[in-house]
Amino acid sequence: MEYRIERDLLGEKEVPKDAYYGIQTMRARENFPITGYPPHPELIRAFGYVKKAAAMANRDVGVLQTNIADAIIQAADEIINGQWVDQFVVDAIQGGAGTSFNMNANEVIANRAIELLGGEKGEYIRVSPNSHVNMAQSTNDAFPTAIHIACLQLAGQLEESLSQLIQAMEVKEKQFDSVLKMGRTHLQDAVPIRLGQEFGAYKRALMRDLGRVKRSVGHLYEVNMGATAVGTGLNALPEYIDKVSDYLADITGHPFQKAENLVDATQNTDAYTEVSSALKILAINLSKMANDIRLMSSGPRTGFNEINLPPRQPGSSIMPGKVNPVMCEVINQLSFQVIGNDHTISLASEAGQLELNVMEPVLVFNLLQSFSILHNGMTVFREYAIEGITANVERCLGLVEGSVGIVTAINPHVGYEVATRIAKEAIQTGRPVREICLERGILSEEELNEILNPKEMTNPGIAGSRFISM
Amino acid sequence: MEYRIERDLLGEKEVPKDAYYGIQTMRARENFPITGYPPHPELIRAFGYVKKAAAMANRDVGVLQTNIADAIIQAADEIINGQWVDQFVVDAIQGGAGTSFNMNANEVIANRAIELLGGEKGEYIRVSPNSHVNMAQSTNDAFPTAIHIACLQLAGQLEESLSQLIQAMEVKEKQFDSVLKMGRTHLQDAVPIRLGQEFGAYKRALMRDLGRVKRSVGHLYEVNMGATAVGTGLNALPEYIDKVSDYLADITGHPFQKAENLVDATQNTDAYTEVSSALKILAINLSKMANDIRLMSSGPRTGFNEINLPPRQPGSSIMPGKVNPVMCEVINQLSFQVIGNDHTISLASEAGQLELNVMEPVLVFNLLQSFSILHNGMTVFREYAIEGITANVERCLGLVEGSVGIVTAINPHVGYEVATRIAKEAIQTGRPVREICLERGILSEEELNEILNPKEMTNPGIAGSRFISM
Amino acid sequence: MEYRIERDLLGEKEVPKDAYYGIQTMRARENFPITGYPPHPELIRAFGYVKKAAAMANRDVGVLQTNIADAIIQAADEIINGQWVDQFVVDAIQGGAGTSFNMNANEVIANRAIELLGGEKGEYIRVSPNSHVNMAQSTNDAFPTAIHIACLQLAGQLEESLSQLIQAMEVKEKQFDSVLKMGRTHLQDAVPIRLGQEFGAYKRALMRDLGRVKRSVGHLYEVNMGATAVGTGLNALPEYIDKVSDYLADITGHPFQKAENLVDATQNTDAYTEVSSALKILAINLSKMANDIRLMSSGPRTGFNEINLPPRQPGSSIMPGKVNPVMCEVINQLSFQVIGNDHTISLASEAGQLELNVMEPVLVFNLLQSFSILHNGMTVFREYAIEGITANVERCLGLVEGSVGIVTAINPHVGYEVATRIAKEAIQTGRPVREICLERGILSEEELNEILNPKEMTNPGIAGSRFISM
Amino acid sequence: MEYRIERDLLGEKEVPKDAYYGIQTMRARENFPITGYPPHPELIRAFGYVKKAAAMANRDVGVLQTNIADAIIQAADEIINGQWVDQFVVDAIQGGAGTSFNMNANEVIANRAIELLGGEKGEYIRVSPNSHVNMAQSTNDAFPTAIHIACLQLAGQLEESLSQLIQAMEVKEKQFDSVLKMGRTHLQDAVPIRLGQEFGAYKRALMRDLGRVKRSVGHLYEVNMGATAVGTGLNALPEYIDKVSDYLADITGHPFQKAENLVDATQNTDAYTEVSSALKILAINLSKMANDIRLMSSGPRTGFNEINLPPRQPGSSIMPGKVNPVMCEVINQLSFQVIGNDHTISLASEAGQLELNVMEPVLVFNLLQSFSILHNGMTVFREYAIEGITANVERCLGLVEGSVGIVTAINPHVGYEVATRIAKEAIQTGRPVREICLERGILSEEELNEILNPKEMTNPGIAGSRFISM
Repeated sequence: MEYRIERDLLGEKEVPKDAYYGIQTMRARENFPITGYPPHPELIRAFGYVKKAAAMANRDVGVLQTNIADAIIQAADEIINGQWVDQFVVDAIQGGAGTSFNMNANEVIANRAIELLGGEKGEYIRVSPNSHVNMAQSTNDAFPTAIHIACLQLAGQLEESLSQLIQAMEVKEKQFDSVLKMGRTHLQDAVPIRLGQEFGAYKRALMRDLGRVKRSVGHLYEVNMGATAVGTGLNALPEYIDKVSDYLADITGHPFQKAENLVDATQNTDAYTEVSSALKILAINLSKMANDIRLMSSGPRTGFNEINLPPRQPGSSIMPGKVNPVMCEVINQLSFQVIGNDHTISLASEAGQLELNVMEPVLVFNLLQSFSILHNGMTVFREYAIEGITANVERCLGLVEGSVGIVTAINPHVGYEVATRIAKEAIQTGRPVREICLERGILSEEELNEILNPKEMTNPGIAGSRFISM
Repeated sequence: MEYRIERDLLGEKEVPKDAYYGIQTMRARENFPITGYPPHPELIRAFGYVKKAAAMANRDVGVLQTNIADAIIQAADEIINGQWVDQFVVDAIQGGAGTSFNMNANEVIANRAIELLGGEKGEYIRVSPNSHVNMAQSTNDAFPTAIHIACLQLAGQLEESLSQLIQAMEVKEKQFDSVLKMGRTHLQDAVPIRLGQEFGAYKRALMRDLGRVKRSVGHLYEVNMGATAVGTGLNALPEYIDKVSDYLADITGHPFQKAENLVDATQNTDAYTEVSSALKILAINLSKMANDIRLMSSGPRTGFNEINLPPRQPGSSIMPGKVNPVMCEVINQLSFQVIGNDHTISLASEAGQLELNVMEPVLVFNLLQSFSILHNGMTVFREYAIEGITANVERCLGLVEGSVGIVTAINPHVGYEVATRIAKEAIQTGRPVREICLERGILSEEELNEILNPKEMTNPGIAGSRFISM
Repeated sequence: MEYRIERDLLGEKEVPKDAYYGIQTMRARENFPITGYPPHPELIRAFGYVKKAAAMANRDVGVLQTNIADAIIQAADEIINGQWVDQFVVDAIQGGAGTSFNMNANEVIANRAIELLGGEKGEYIRVSPNSHVNMAQSTNDAFPTAIHIACLQLAGQLEESLSQLIQAMEVKEKQFDSVLKMGRTHLQDAVPIRLGQEFGAYKRALMRDLGRVKRSVGHLYEVNMGATAVGTGLNALPEYIDKVSDYLADITGHPFQKAENLVDATQNTDAYTEVSSALKILAINLSKMANDIRLMSSGPRTGFNEINLPPRQPGSSIMPGKVNPVMCEVINQLSFQVIGNDHTISLASEAGQLELNVMEPVLVFNLLQSFSILHNGMTVFREYAIEGITANVERCLGLVEGSVGIVTAINPHVGYEVATRIAKEAIQTGRPVREICLERGILSEEELNEILNPKEMTNPGIAGSRFISM
Repeated sequence: MEYRIERDLLGEKEVPKDAYYGIQTMRARENFPITGYPPHPELIRAFGYVKKAAAMANRDVGVLQTNIADAIIQAADEIINGQWVDQFVVDAIQGGAGTSFNMNANEVIANRAIELLGGEKGEYIRVSPNSHVNMAQSTNDAFPTAIHIACLQLAGQLEESLSQLIQAMEVKEKQFDSVLKMGRTHLQDAVPIRLGQEFGAYKRALMRDLGRVKRSVGHLYEVNMGATAVGTGLNALPEYIDKVSDYLADITGHPFQKAENLVDATQNTDAYTEVSSALKILAINLSKMANDIRLMSSGPRTGFNEINLPPRQPGSSIMPGKVNPVMCEVINQLSFQVIGNDHTISLASEAGQLELNVMEPVLVFNLLQSFSILHNGMTVFREYAIEGITANVERCLGLVEGSVGIVTAINPHVGYEVATRIAKEAIQTGRPVREICLERGILSEEELNEILNPKEMTNPGIAGSRFISM
C-alpha cells in the first residue's frame, strides 16, 4: 500500500495514501482494537450535521472563509448522505471521550474538502481538521451533540415501530374481545377474563412506553454546541453559539436549542440514562408480553394451547414437526440485551468526573444498540408474531367451564367463608360449583344462572346483585 | 403464652390471644422467615387508607352495614396514626403477591373493629377480615393501591429534601461564583472554570432529577381499586369503584383516580420501574457529585485540596488527625444500593405473568427503601457536607496560574497547530505559555494581556477577538 | 436521660450515661441515619473475635498489659456470646470505610473492660478504645477480618441448608424415577422424560452451587490482620502479625492465615465479589427451579397440573379455595434480591481507590443479607415445598400419550425428512403417529412397538436399532 | 441473483444459487434482522469441531456411511480453518435456542459435502443437513458443545494476555520498589507506601483473576454431546456418546468428557454464568487499577502527578498539548461492557425453562464478546500503558515529606490521644510533626530520627520499638 506522512503533537505516522482519515484516526485504530465494531451509521451521519452547522455558523460570524466553509459543508453533506461510511474506522469502544470519533470526522471532512478545493489529501494548510473543521468546537460539545442527533433519529424510527405494534395489539384486542378464557394469577386458575382484555392490557402498557420514550428524548433537544472544552464556551463567539443551534435545527428538522447551562450539559449524562431507562422499561414490558404469549401458546398438546402463533421456521434439528415461538424468544433475548445495556450505561454515567464524562463512547455504543435492536425486534415481532395470532376459542371456553375459580362470584351472596367451603369441596371431589350450591340449598337455580355466568364475570359488578339484601 | 384457635381453608391454628392479627398472618410468619424486616411503616399506613376508603365506599353503596363500616373506619384511622404498627409482622419479602400483607391488615382491622363493637378478638362473625374488611377488594387491587399511596408519601418527603439540596447547591453556586480554578477533563488539566459554575452544574442536574421524580410518580395517581382479582372488577359494583377512588383522594390528599384500564393496571408494574429509574438516575448524579467533591477535597497535603468539607468524625482508628469525606462516601454507598435496588425491581417487574405480577413484595421492599435512603442521605449530605463547604481560593488560583491549559485561548489567533507547538514546549521546559509566545514573537504583550486572562476564559467568547482578521 | 461528656479530635459530645458505646459511635449515629438497620449480628460477633485475638497477640508480644488484655478478652467474649448486641447502634450503610463499626466495637469493649477493671464508663485512661482495644490495628485490617469471619459463619450455615436441599432433591429424584412425563423445550412438547430426571438435574445444579460456594469462601481464610492502615503493617510488630492470625484460627475454628500480600489484601475486594458471584449463581439456579415447579404445578384445572405442592396458606383474599405456590414465589423474590445485591456489591467493589475500598459497608450489608436470605429461603423451600411435592402420575402419562413429540424416535429409521411429514400430518389431523406410520407402510407394527415405547425414549439409544441397516 | 428452491416443514423458499447455506438459514435471516452482527468467528469454528467429531463417531458406530462421513469431515475441517466464514449469516441474537446457528452449520457442511461428493448444492438426498450432518444430535447438545469449545479457545487467549499483564505488573513492582510515596485512603493523606507495593498489589489481584478464570472454565470440559433433545439421549447410541467426546478431545486438544448427567447439562447454564462472573470480577479489578493509574497520573500541573503514562494520541481537538490517559479509559469502558454483559447473561440464564434454556444465543453473544474485549483490551493496556509507566520520584518523595500522616508512627510511643493533638496542631499550623514533638518534649531527637523514617513505615513493625516500655 502507498502511504503519505502526517504529523501531530506526538510525531509522524504513515497514513494510507487514499484514506480520507488522517494521523489521529490511525493512532486511534492502533490504540483501540477492542470490539471490531465501527461507529453506528447514525452517529456518523450525525457528525455530518454537526460539522455542517458549525461551518455555517463560523462562516456567518466571519471567522471561517467562505470557500473553506463551503467545501466543509459539501463534504459534511456527503457524509450525511452515507457516502464516506467506510472512512469511519475507529472502534465503537475507545478511550478519550470520543475525541477519536470527532477527529475521524474532522479528518475525513478536511481531506474531502481539500480535494474539493483542488488539493491533495493531507494538505491541511488548506483545510485543517482542527482549526477549520473543528473550529469553535471541542469533542466535548461536538460529540454529545452528535449523540443527541443520532438518538433522535433512532427514536423517531423506534416510535414508528412501537406505534405499529400498539396498533397490532389493538386489532387483537378487538378481534378477541369475545373470546372468554380463564384468567390466571400465580399461574393458578383465577377467574374468567376475555382474551381481548389481555391484548388491551398489552396495548396500554406499550402506550405508556411510547409516552415514556417520547418524553425521555425531550431533553435531547438541548445541545451543548458552543460549550467547547468544559462548558465555559472558551473560543466560541456568543453569536456563533446562537447560530449553530439554529442551523442544527434547520438542517436536521429537530427543534434543537442551546442548553441553558453549558457547563452542566458538558459534564452530566443523565439525559442519556433517562433515555436508556425508558428503553429498559419498554424491554421489560415486551419481555413480559413475550413470556405470556409463549405460555398461552404452549403445547400444542401438553400446554395451555389457548392461542396459536404463525409458524416461522422448523423448531428443531432433531424433533420433526416441532415449531417454536421464536419471535417471542428473540424479544426476550433482545430485552435482556437492552437491560444489560442499561446497566453498562449506568456504570458509564456514574463514572463522569468533574468537567467531563470520558466514558461516553461505551455509553453511546450501548444506547444506540438498544434503540436499533428494539426497533428491529418490534418490527418482526409485530409482523411475524402478533398480527398472525389466532385463538383456540373452544379450548379457552372449555378451560373456563372446567374451572373452580368461578366460585368467587358467589362471595357477595354467601360470604368468603362459605364460598371457601364450597370451593374446597369442588376441588377435592371434582364436582361443579353449581351442583354443590344447589345440593346444599345455598343458592337457587335462578340465582346461580345469573351469578355463575362467566361472561358477566369479565366486567365490573356483582352478578345477581339484585338478590342481595343486607 | 395464651392462644386462641382460628380456622381457614387449610385448617386450624393457634394465634396469640392478644394479637390483633390472625391465622393467615400466623401462616405467613411461618412460611416467610426471610429478611427479618417488617413492612415499611408507610406501607402499613397506606393499608389504613385503602381499607378506610373501601369501607366508606361499600357503606355508601349499601353493601356494608353502617356500624361495621364505622368500626372498620376507626380501626383504619388508628393504623394511619401509627397505632398498631407492631401488629404488622409479616416479612418484607414474601410469596403470594402481597396477600399476606393484605390479610395482615384485614385481620388487624377486623379484630380491632370487633373490639370496638364490643366483641372478642377472633369473633369474625361480627367483622370478617375477608367478607367485610376486604369487601369488594382483592390483594391484587388493595396492595398496588397501598403501594401507590406509600410511594407518594415518600416521594413528597424526597422532593422536599431534594429541593433543599438544590437550594444549598445554589447558595454555593453564588458564593463561589468568583473562585477561579482549573477545569479538568480526563483528570488532566484543561482550561479555567469557576467553582461556582461547578456547583451550578450540580444544581441543574438535581433540578432535572426533581422534575424526573415528580413526573415519574405521576402515573401513581391512577389506582386500580375495583379491579379485584384480575382487573375485570368481578364483585365490585361500578358505583363502588367510582366512590372508592374519590374517597382515597379525599382522605390522602392525593388526586387519585380510577385507572383507565383495570386489567392493565393489575398486571403491569412499569409505573414502579419508572419511579425506580428516576431514583436510580438521581443516585447516579449524586454519586458523581460525591466523587467530584471527594476529589476536590482530596489532601490536605497530597491531593487537589481545592475545597474543604466540614469535619464530621475522626477518620481513622489508627491515623491521628485524619478526617475523611464520610458524608460523600455514604452518598456513594446509598447510591450503589439504589442502583442495585433498581436491578432487583427490574427483575421483579419482568417476572409478571398473565393477569398478575406476584413479585410485588420484593419490588416494593426495594422501592420504598430507595426512597427512604435517598431522602435520609440527601438530608445529611446537605446539612453536614454541602452547606459547610469552603473554598481554598488561593490554592485554586495558584493551580490555574501554573497550568499550561490556558494555551487554548490562543488557538483562534494562531491556529491549533502553532498552539500545539507552544504547549509542547511549555510542558517540556516548564516555562510559561506567555513567555514563549512573546519570545517567539507570536503574539504581542498587548494581545497576550487580553487573550490569556483566565477569568475571561470562563465565559463564552474569543478573548482578544478584536485582534483577529481572516 | 443522663449523659457523660466525651472528647475526641473534633471536640466534646454527650453520651448517654449507661451506654457502652462512646463519642465516635454518637457521631456516626448522627451522621448516618440512613437505613435504620443495625449491623448484621454475625458482624458484631466477628468483631468480638477480632478484638479478642488482637488483645491476646498484643499481650503475648509484650505491648499490652496483661490485666488490660484480660479485661478486653472477657468483654470480647461477651460480644461473641451475643451479650451486647443492643450496643451496636451504627447504621448498616455508613461513610468512613467501616471506621464507625470498628470504633463502636472498640468503645463498647473499652467501656466494658473498664467496668470489669472497676472503673466507670468513659474512663479511657484505664482502657482506651484506640490505644488498647484497637492496638496494632486499623479499621482497614480489623473490619475486613471481621467481614471474613462473618461470611464464613454464614457460609457454614448456608452450606448446611443447601446440602439439605440437595438431599431433598435426591429423595424426589428417586421417588419420581418412574414417573414418565412429557419433556418440554421452548414450552413446546418435545420428547418424553422422567420426572425423577428433572429433579436429578436440579440436584446436580445445586451440587455445583455447593462446590462454588465452598470454593468461593476459600479466599476468605486469608486475613489481613497486621496490615494496619494501608497494608504496610506500620505499627504492627511482625511477631504480633503472626500470632494474631493463629489466635483467630484457634478461637474461631477457621483455618485463618496471614494474607500473603497485605497491601493487596487491604485494597482489593474481589474476594467478596467472588463470594457474591457464587451466591448469585445459586440464586439464578434456584429461581429457575422455582419457575419450573410453578409451571409444573400450574392449574389445578387450566395448567400443566403435573405435580402438587403442599398447600401453605390460602392464596387469595377474594378467590375462595385458591392456593398459590408461595414457597416458590418467595424463592424467586429472594433470588432477585440476591442478584440485585450482587450488583450493588460489584459497584462498591469497583469503587475502591488506591490503598483502600471505602465502600465496604454497603458491600458487606448486601453480602451478609444475601447469605441470610438464601439460607432462610432454602430452609423453608425444602421443608414447606420440595419435600411435600407429589406427582400426578396419570396426568403425566396421559400427556405423553397424547403428544406428537414421540415421532422423534422414528428419525433414525426413516430420516428427518420423512418423519417431518408424518409429524405434520399428526398435528394437523390429530391422529396418532403410530397410526399414520402403519397406514403408510412406513414402519411395521413390530418395529413401532419397539420404537415408540416412551419409557425407552428416556434413556440413551436408538429404539429399535436392530431394525436399522445402512 | 439466481436462486434454487428448497423445501422444509413450512414449505418452499428461494435460496441464492451459490449459497452453501439453505432454506432454514434463509428463514432465520428473515426472522432475525436484530443486531446485524454475525456469529463470533470462534463459534463458527467450534461448530466445525462438533460436526467433525459427530461424523467420526457416527461413522465408527456404523450409522453413517464412510463416504458421507468423510465429506462431512472435510467440510468441517474447512470451517475450522476459517474457509466458509462468510456463509454463516444468521444474526447473533436469535430466537430458537440456537437452532438457526446449528442449521446454518448443518446446511453449509451438507452443501459443501455434496459438492465434494460431486453433487449440486441443494441435493440433500446425497447429504442431508438433518439426517446426516446433524445425525444423533440436537441443537440442544451440538450448540452448547460448540459454546464450550469457543469459550475454551478464547479463554486460552485471554489467559495468555492476562499472564503477560501480570508479568508487566511484576516488572513495575520491582522497578518501583524503592519509590517512596504517600499512601492515600479515602483520597486523604494516609501513611507512606512504596510505588512498587502498589503495582505488587495489582499483580496479585490479577493473579487471583487468572486463577478464577482458569477454574471457571473447568466446568466447560464436560460436554453434553449425546444428550440430544432433552438430555435423555434419545436417538444417540451409547457407543456414539462415548466416542464423540473422545473425538472432540482429540481434535481440539481440550480434555473434553461426557457430562455426568446429560439432562442437567442440557437445561442448566450455570457453567456460563460462572465463567462470566470470573470475567466480571477481572473487569472490576481492571477498572479499579485503571482508575488508580488515572488518579496517580493526573495533572500534569494540577493533579497528583506521581507517575507518567506514555502519550498515545493528542488528547483534545481544541486544547493543544493535552494528552489523556486513553488506554486506562478504554479499560474502564470495556470493563463496564463486561459488567453489563454479565447482567444480560444472568437474565438469560435465569430464563431457562424445564428441559432447555432457549436464551442461549444472547448469552453466548455477550459471553464471547466479554472474552474478546478483555483480551484485546489487556493486550493494548499492557503494551501502550503499563509497560511505559515512569515515576516522578522526587514529586512522590516531596509529597511524603510534606504530609502529616507520618504522625501515625508515634502512636505506639505516645498513644493515639496524644498523637491526635500533635496531628491537629500540625495540620492547623502547617508546622512539621517532628518540630512539634521536639518542642513539646514529647519525644527526643534520637527517638524521632528512628520513628519518623518514612521508608521504615512501609514495612511491618513499630519504628523505634526499642524505646517502648510498658
